[in-house]
Amino acid sequence: MQKLRWLSATLGLLAIGSLHAEPADVIQPPTDYRHWFHVNTMIVDKASPLFDQLGGMHNVYINATGEEALKKGGPYPDGTMFVTDLHEFTVQDGSYVEGPRKVLAVMVKDAKTYQSTGGWGFQLFAGGDAKKPLVTDAAKQCFGCHEPRKDHDYVFSTYIP
Amino acid sequence: MQKLRWLSATLGLLAIGSLHAEPADVIQPPTDYRHWFHVNTMIVDKASPLFDQLGGMHNVYINATGEEALKKGGPYPDGTMFVTDLHEFTVQDGSYVEGPRKVLAVMVKDAKTYQSTGGWGFQLFAGGDAKKPLVTDAAKQCFGCHEPRKDHDYVFSTYIP
Repeated sequence: MQKLRWLSATLGLLAIGSLHAEPADVIQPPTDYRHWFHVNTMIVDKASPLFDQLGGMHNVYINATGEEALKKGGPYPDGTMFVTDLHEFTVQDGSYVEGPRKVLAVMVKDAKTYQSTGGWGFQLFAGGDAKKPLVTDAAKQCFGCHEPRKDHDYVFSTYIP
Repeated sequence: MQKLRWLSATLGLLAIGSLHAEPADVIQPPTDYRHWFHVNTMIVDKASPLFDQLGGMHNVYINATGEEALKKGGPYPDGTMFVTDLHEFTVQDGSYVEGPRKVLAVMVKDAKTYQSTGGWGFQLFAGGDAKKPLVTDAAKQCFGCHEPRKDHDYVFSTYIP
């Protein structure tokens, strides 16, 4: 009986412990992405139908794991991460000038964990803050738009030499 | 006399040799800059008075030597290199999309070698081609515009966190 109580208490602690542990699919924003390979930049301006959702200057980076695949147009190996560092911009005398960060968008490849969204996990962080994730349903909020890019492993970015 | 002839011939060869050697201020385009710190991006559009000279998407990078100085707004240590990878762009439904490279612009800090241009060497390479340098007079073609930025060690780029 004593042993059973101990076992029960231990399992209880383990359960509490697992509540605090991060599940496998929790995505954290990387910190060193501005030293990754800079894939390209795109500006989505007010005239774009995507402005409300995606307006801003998109600086896109890829980590070393995915770089070779990018040059071939995919598919990407597990561990590939894309980051879109989305900034405000201002227009001054015909020059589009980068402003502060709006959102940091992350795509991470893990074919097993993210089977239902093409093998990619998606997350957005308000202002780049790890404590402010915005995506609660990646299938609806992210993958819906990426799905038509199946031929490029669901990636919009292309390699520009 | 025999010895003098030998000396003369040898000096002649050395002189020819030095004609072919590169002077200390020959700037070569770096190859790995897309893995350097991405400083920022700016687009100079048709509405800009600078469009004829500088039109395009400016992707600016700095090497590791200069990175700390960038965050403080200068001054920059010798060996600092800035690269502006200047690309064409197209406008599609309000999105400004990166195109092929126009020019690679390089600024390299060497206070002693480039005393007359604020300690910076400047070069532009058509299409990024090391064999197609475009600057023949850095003081006129480059430094004239950079000179008013003396307070920032003649650098236009600023650090955006």
